Amino acid sequence: MIDPVALTADLVRCPSVTPAEGGALVLLEKMLTKAGFACTRVDRNGTANLFARWGAKGHARSFGFNGHTDVVPIGVRSDWTRDPFGGELAEGRVWGRGACDMKSGVAAFVAAAVDFVQATPPEGAIILAITGDEEGPAQDGTVALLDWMATEGEAMSVCLVGEPTCPERMGEMMKIGRRGSMNATITARGRQGHAAYPHRAANPLPVLVGLLDRLARHELDQGTDHFDPSTLALTTVDVGNDATNVIPATARAGLNIRFNDLHSGQSLSDWLHALAAEESAGTGVALELAIRVSGEAFLTPPGPLSELVARAVQAECGVVPVLSTSGGTSDARFVKNHCPVVEFGLVGQSMHQVDEFAEIAHIEQLKRVYSRVLQDYFAGC
Amino acid sequence: MIDPVALTADLVRCPSVTPAEGGALVLLEKMLTKAGFACTRVDRNGTANLFARWGAKGHARSFGFNGHTDVVPIGVRSDWTRDPFGGELAEGRVWGRGACDMKSGVAAFVAAAVDFVQATPPEGAIILAITGDEEGPAQDGTVALLDWMATEGEAMSVCLVGEPTCPERMGEMMKIGRRGSMNATITARGRQGHAAYPHRAANPLPVLVGLLDRLARHELDQGTDHFDPSTLALTTVDVGNDATNVIPATARAGLNIRFNDLHSGQSLSDWLHALAAEESAGTGVALELAIRVSGEAFLTPPGPLSELVARAVQAECGVVPVLSTSGGTSDARFVKNHCPVVEFGLVGQSMHQVDEFAEIAHIEQLKRVYSRVLQDYFAGC
Repeated sequence: MIDPVALTADLVRCPSVTPAEGGALVLLEKMLTKAGFACTRVDRNGTANLFARWGAKGHARSFGFNGHTDVVPIGVRSDWTRDPFGGELAEGRVWGRGACDMKSGVAAFVAAAVDFVQATPPEGAIILAITGDEEGPAQDGTVALLDWMATEGEAMSVCLVGEPTCPERMGEMMKIGRRGSMNATITARGRQGHAAYPHRAANPLPVLVGLLDRLARHELDQGTDHFDPSTLALTTVDVGNDATNVIPATARAGLNIRFNDLHSGQSLSDWLHALAAEESAGTGVALELAIRVSGEAFLTPPGPLSELVARAVQAECGVVPVLSTSGGTSDARFVKNHCPVVEFGLVGQSMHQVDEFAEIAHIEQLKRVYSRVLQDYFAGC
Repeated sequence: MIDPVALTADLVRCPSVTPAEGGALVLLEKMLTKAGFACTRVDRNGTANLFARWGAKGHARSFGFNGHTDVVPIGVRSDWTRDPFGGELAEGRVWGRGACDMKSGVAAFVAAAVDFVQATPPEGAIILAITGDEEGPAQDGTVALLDWMATEGEAMSVCLVGEPTCPERMGEMMKIGRRGSMNATITARGRQGHAAYPHRAANPLPVLVGLLDRLARHELDQGTDHFDPSTLALTTVDVGNDATNVIPATARAGLNIRFNDLHSGQSLSDWLHALAAEESAGTGVALELAIRVSGEAFLTPPGPLSELVARAVQAECGVVPVLSTSGGTSDARFVKNHCPVVEFGLVGQSMHQVDEFAEIAHIEQLKRVYSRVLQDYFAGC
């Protein structure tokens, strides 16, 4: 039996601040290899990733777990009252950077998987895809694992991501999708002039402000069954003109859109371009858009996988989890191209903060949830 | 007879970049004293000003000229093809900083006044109020002269300011007033937050942009008999938020209003405050206004003074000058509180530019206009 609390503490003691491996994946590889998993380090461009499979390659019943061992920086050391890499157990908690996000999640699914295959070897396979690059650019992390798996003929039938998903109470929420995210920079180019003679200049600001006002007032949608309404936030406008008698030549604005599955990066980009063309027409001011879509919206519609996980959560935590699509991005945005994916994990309140921690009772509970998921999955429930 | 062209060149050779006196006022004081003018240096806070009067103090017929000898900086020396302080005569022009704005104007009225009092001593007084601080803050220039005159019991019955007033052709325009000018800085203060959860933040940008859009679209008026329509120019918006996932706490905007005599600094300030209150109501965002009125609109309605000057212009230049209120501010905005004031001077195209110049023929013509104004004024026309 593997103790997920001790394993969490051991992992916290590995200083794996993204993109450093810090010993975390080495530790897991050793443990998993010993337990009969076929392990492969799938490193790419200096980023460490670990693929581990128990059971036959390409089996039609291959349950996958995905998670990461890299952590965000600690910030100012003196703000912490605990050693960020001490893995201290006190007050019923494991303390340190990554204790919550998400070395505990990795420890819980590793412990559940190892115990499960040793106690009741299943008919099928269990795949653990663990990355060292989720908190960073995430270009050589889970993506590299999935690329490698495709090349090698490795496949997960379904996947559970172990990220913290509960806002306040253990078990209250799981994620079945995420909103997409897009950033746009709008550059308005006009013609400089004297503030006393606006008709001789082409002031970029009224045109830009007109567009921004329309964008800020626009209701993108009213939400869907599984998604909150999409949001658009103006994040900055900058000119940098200190001369009160000068009309500037150029102005820039930034905005961020979080969008549900009624939209795509392309549909929103088309919409922004169309509005910009309307607002700039005949003004002598050009509006240029630079758009970056950091993730498309995705949804694993409620079905067998979400029901399997929800049943296990209810049995172990005594609460029916909400099927949510809220929050920021996670590696589920990559996994969704590979197989159905849902996310369930701890209460996330302390993640990315100083004195990060995980409740010992919650880590043990999480291992039991994951164990039950495996039992039910391979029992064909 | 004083040659206004040679005097212009001599003045250009005095490097009186605002606020430096540069020898210009010293030169004029010497010349005027010799010609029988009572001269007083009215310096204040390190700024040099020259008051000169021919004739009796407090006479009911006291004709005034106002002008400045300070000049704007030359900018990048290597951009000039002539010595900025050389006072070179070439191609029928006097070249150098201030040749146009407005050492030529000062030279022309000094030459006209000296020749006039020596040839036909008038029944009355001629007052020259010449400042060394028009291009700078203008707080210790003509204002200081007028303050001192009030204290000393000195008074002009009417005043002609010698600023360049003609857009392209000599004689085509004189000024009988100026629009007012006001700068406003609007600070929007909200509450920072994550771009993914706009409802938890109070984004200052939509509120600020909403106000700016209303301001930019608003028609202040359609102009009056003597004034162009008032204008409002957005000059800057600044946030400085580089984080695309963060809603900022604060945003600032700047704008400049050039207003005619349908408005005042106070009426516009009240209007801005009312709109800001409307736009911010119920948003959780506070809009703060910082307003500076650099000059109220003013008008010397067409009448004896403008007719006197217009007749002289027509006689010497062969064109009826338009009575305009266009353009930026000048010291006439201060003189208008003292007595009726109009402005007439050279073609202003090269002012504030590199290779500034004045046409020799125009300077001579300007002296003749000023001479005729004096003759007609004291002849009681």
